[in-house]
Amino acid sequence: MTELLSAAQLEERLRHVGETRYHHLHPFHKLLHGGKLTKGQVQAWALNRYYYQASIPRKDATLLARLDNAADRRAWRQRIIDHDGMKEGEGGIARWLMLTGGLGLDQDYVEGCRGILPATRFAVDAYVHFVAERSVLEAVASSLTEMFSPMIIANRVAGMLANYDFVSQQTLAYFQNRLTEAPRDADFALAYVKHHARTPEQQQQAIAALTFKCDVLWVQLDALYHAYVAPGHVPPGSFVPQE
Amino acid sequence: MTELLSAAQLEERLRHVGETRYHHLHPFHKLLHGGKLTKGQVQAWALNRYYYQASIPRKDATLLARLDNAADRRAWRQRIIDHDGMKEGEGGIARWLMLTGGLGLDQDYVEGCRGILPATRFAVDAYVHFVAERSVLEAVASSLTEMFSPMIIANRVAGMLANYDFVSQQTLAYFQNRLTEAPRDADFALAYVKHHARTPEQQQQAIAALTFKCDVLWVQLDALYHAYVAPGHVPPGSFVPQE
Repeated sequence: MTELLSAAQLEERLRHVGETRYHHLHPFHKLLHGGKLTKGQVQAWALNRYYYQASIPRKDATLLARLDNAADRRAWRQRIIDHDGMKEGEGGIARWLMLTGGLGLDQDYVEGCRGILPATRFAVDAYVHFVAERSVLEAVASSLTEMFSPMIIANRVAGMLANYDFVSQQTLAYFQNRLTEAPRDADFALAYVKHHARTPEQQQQAIAALTFKCDVLWVQLDALYHAYVAPGHVPPGSFVPQE
Repeated sequence: MTELLSAAQLEERLRHVGETRYHHLHPFHKLLHGGKLTKGQVQAWALNRYYYQASIPRKDATLLARLDNAADRRAWRQRIIDHDGMKEGEGGIARWLMLTGGLGLDQDYVEGCRGILPATRFAVDAYVHFVAERSVLEAVASSLTEMFSPMIIANRVAGMLANYDFVSQQTLAYFQNRLTEAPRDADFALAYVKHHARTPEQQQQAIAALTFKCDVLWVQLDALYHAYVAPGHVPPGSFVPQE
């Protein structure tokens, strides 16, 4: 039988999921941060990741609609504000378009999401569906990958600036904001999960939700690796790098 | 502007989608049918494909629930009967378990779907969601990959029997039944689509639905190739071949 964990034990188990399954361990990230990718491969990463970025506010809106008190909703709505911005050209999605634009990708092409890998679409849509269909506790827990993102972002910005002449501090502005937003969001979500996961079953659901979310991130890099690194099988209809 | 196609032109366009995007073109199938895979790699294919097989009746049930006349429902319900069988041990899912069992995989492990690739789950779930959420026309059109399955099945059975000593006519019984079921189902679905896609928009939706379904099948083989052929990156938690 599964036993009830203390809040500290639960946090430890959640952190263990990140240490063993978060995508900082994926070979594609090592290539990306280590300067081992061509510009075309970095374009493919940014293009596909756009679909994830653009879907996050819809995911958060389905969760916002199910939070039953104003304090929680005030905290959670900030995520939507951060991504969608206060006006045109602001927010995380707009900053991601600065990255894809800086990499030479046409904005209409990026926003149309026509060239993304089918695996990207399926993984991201699985996340949106998961948050809409599972319990609020599981939906919140699935966001906890943000506990681990600061470490990957610091490496990414330093590594990409050092290794690629086609990226600049300005095109990487997205990540600068995430360094403060992600820990704030993660602190709230972790406190929520520790408070609301009160039975062994709920605790296991929270751990499984974070595992699921790690899979969502991992699958996206698997698909990029397969299509654009080795063996380099781009699926029919997906983006083909020109440089 | 998109123009209205004749029924024959629409069928031609649908067949073109299959000729250019159906998974008979995928490198993994060439390895599978050509006897180039190890038993462990064939196990991985059968294990993952089980999740697809087991999900099909749920997909068909959501569609059955939205068909508005008895004749269409009588035709469509046969698919559920074919997959689920008339009693325990019969039907397509049971025949797929004969294949996985013949390959040496434990039935509880297969049915639990714990070792499948996350990409398999996301792709199959995307198909189930698509059929539940899109128009009936698009849902029916997404089944039209069955127009192309007889050619792949004939190659598969002949190739696998000739090349692998760990498969037999009996373990491949699933495919024998599909050789007659799939054309019957495809004939009905194709006639339905040709009759009900009456505007240029509906015709484009039908073509897009079949393209989507080809992506669902393609992604599953991409993920198998990436995990088990080259570079051989098995995601955390997925099946690891022992032979």
